[in-house]
Amino acid sequence: QWMMLDWKTKRPDMLADLDPFGLGRIVQDGLVFRQNFSIRSYEIGADRTASIETLMNHLQETALNHVKTAGLLGDGFGSTPEMCKKNLFWVVTKMQVMVDRYPTWGDVVQVDTWVARSGKNGMRRDWLLRDCKTGEVVTRASSNWVMMNKETRRLSKIPDEVRAEIEHYFVDAPPVVDDDSRKLPKLEDTTADYVRNGLTPRWSDLDVNQHVNNVKYIGWILESAPQQVVEKYELAGLTLEYRRECRKDSVLKSLTSVLGDGIADSDSDFDSGGVDCQHVLLFESGGEGEIVKGRTAWRPKDKDGVRSSIA
Amino acid sequence: QWMMLDWKTKRPDMLADLDPFGLGRIVQDGLVFRQNFSIRSYEIGADRTASIETLMNHLQETALNHVKTAGLLGDGFGSTPEMCKKNLFWVVTKMQVMVDRYPTWGDVVQVDTWVARSGKNGMRRDWLLRDCKTGEVVTRASSNWVMMNKETRRLSKIPDEVRAEIEHYFVDAPPVVDDDSRKLPKLEDTTADYVRNGLTPRWSDLDVNQHVNNVKYIGWILESAPQQVVEKYELAGLTLEYRRECRKDSVLKSLTSVLGDGIADSDSDFDSGGVDCQHVLLFESGGEGEIVKGRTAWRPKDKDGVRSSIA
Repeated sequence: QWMMLDWKTKRPDMLADLDPFGLGRIVQDGLVFRQNFSIRSYEIGADRTASIETLMNHLQETALNHVKTAGLLGDGFGSTPEMCKKNLFWVVTKMQVMVDRYPTWGDVVQVDTWVARSGKNGMRRDWLLRDCKTGEVVTRASSNWVMMNKETRRLSKIPDEVRAEIEHYFVDAPPVVDDDSRKLPKLEDTTADYVRNGLTPRWSDLDVNQHVNNVKYIGWILESAPQQVVEKYELAGLTLEYRRECRKDSVLKSLTSVLGDGIADSDSDFDSGGVDCQHVLLFESGGEGEIVKGRTAWRPKDKDGVRSSIA
Repeated sequence: QWMMLDWKTKRPDMLADLDPFGLGRIVQDGLVFRQNFSIRSYEIGADRTASIETLMNHLQETALNHVKTAGLLGDGFGSTPEMCKKNLFWVVTKMQVMVDRYPTWGDVVQVDTWVARSGKNGMRRDWLLRDCKTGEVVTRASSNWVMMNKETRRLSKIPDEVRAEIEHYFVDAPPVVDDDSRKLPKLEDTTADYVRNGLTPRWSDLDVNQHVNNVKYIGWILESAPQQVVEKYELAGLTLEYRRECRKDSVLKSLTSVLGDGIADSDSDFDSGGVDCQHVLLFESGGEGEIVKGRTAWRPKDKDGVRSSIA
């Protein structure tokens, strides 16, 4: 269904026509935005593979470039002209990412993204990441967005003028990741297996709206993930629900519990199969309540750091 | 002297010939490696400009791709085949960066890099960054490197076999940034104007050698830079001297003092002209001594966040 580009069979002038500067372009009858990313040395970690932050950065970049290429980038950072007029901006409420394989340095990843209707006042954005050389799908992601008023900080319906700008871009297709709506038990300081206090945004964590960029949260969430999980397992998937904004002067704490019936801090939990964790980011100061909550799924790495199949 | 690419006059098939995947290529009679980077949304900060970390990441990436494209990438991360045989790897001892203008989202930056002899047992690597559209030089950087033995962690002379691999790549040209060898007073907890304790490497800060990547240090250094400097001034240049390695379990403290005769924590220091700071990163635990020391130069931002000229 989704066409794979076979670079080797193209003539050089065809290549140039496709995306000479790597800035992306609209494909698939105007409904899909496509951009290639070569994975860089500074985007890989100790495992020699791209980090989850890197992949999520590529999701953000293609979403913004999609809006820009469609000629809909207003004053803001992803806002359309009509949204700017009405002081509205997009906020992400949920993000689900399933990583089948992490690319490594020098790999070229082709990212496709498109938008769809989601309920009455939301928008869904999906992504499909492929290894450019083989066409293999390496990652799928699905996200939900609503509009917020810059002044009141309250959620807003999608005004008709905005709907008119965006709705002909909506693709009629099911989400690439099934909605994970499994309920999670409440996670608090007293019940969490692992707690990491005193996380503070750095100056460089802020985006142009002086807010902490969505992608930064996953780093803080992983700060409280048990070391034996981070070292011996590979993140296979995540579901994050964004509840509150965090600002420069906030201090956060990150809580993690291992799901299932094992005893969380014994090595034997992690002997075979996968591990699921639940997480929450809370204000320690500078606010109150949950900022982000969610779950992560992990699969064993093999001895060379390469993933084995999911148990 | 250095040729500027005027993209607009090239035919599409010429473009493709140049660098269709943005992976870079050798130019200038085989002595210079050139790669283009489009600045991405997640590489810019609250000022809408690329961060210094972003620029330094691009320096690292081109250095590695230069070695790779020259066919000299051995097993390691920048080591040549003969270096791998002898268990040697490159360590940076000094980095000087002068930023004339920070690029913004969507700008394409052309990075040129080359190497030169430096004393008897060192190598110099220089970079010149240009705005691809205008040809304007936006950043210059110069660095010094020596070899370290992986087992003994001691510095090594350059073996003849390694010299034979690399010396015909050496360019006979003066450094693009004059060597800054001005002595700095000793900076300690008791004398520093600003101290930031408890900095810990995150899992994602580690590179494939399980060491903290060189570029991460600048972020920690800026953690102790006074807020009024970071907000009202723009980093115009830095000199960093790398003294010791830091590992995953180290805890660091970052010290900054404002240079000159002003009183550091009064607003009046920063009223006009530039500010110079001195910095040191020390072990709080997990080691002893100085990890990185150096100085930064800052120029006022104007009201729109755009730099004004250097006073």
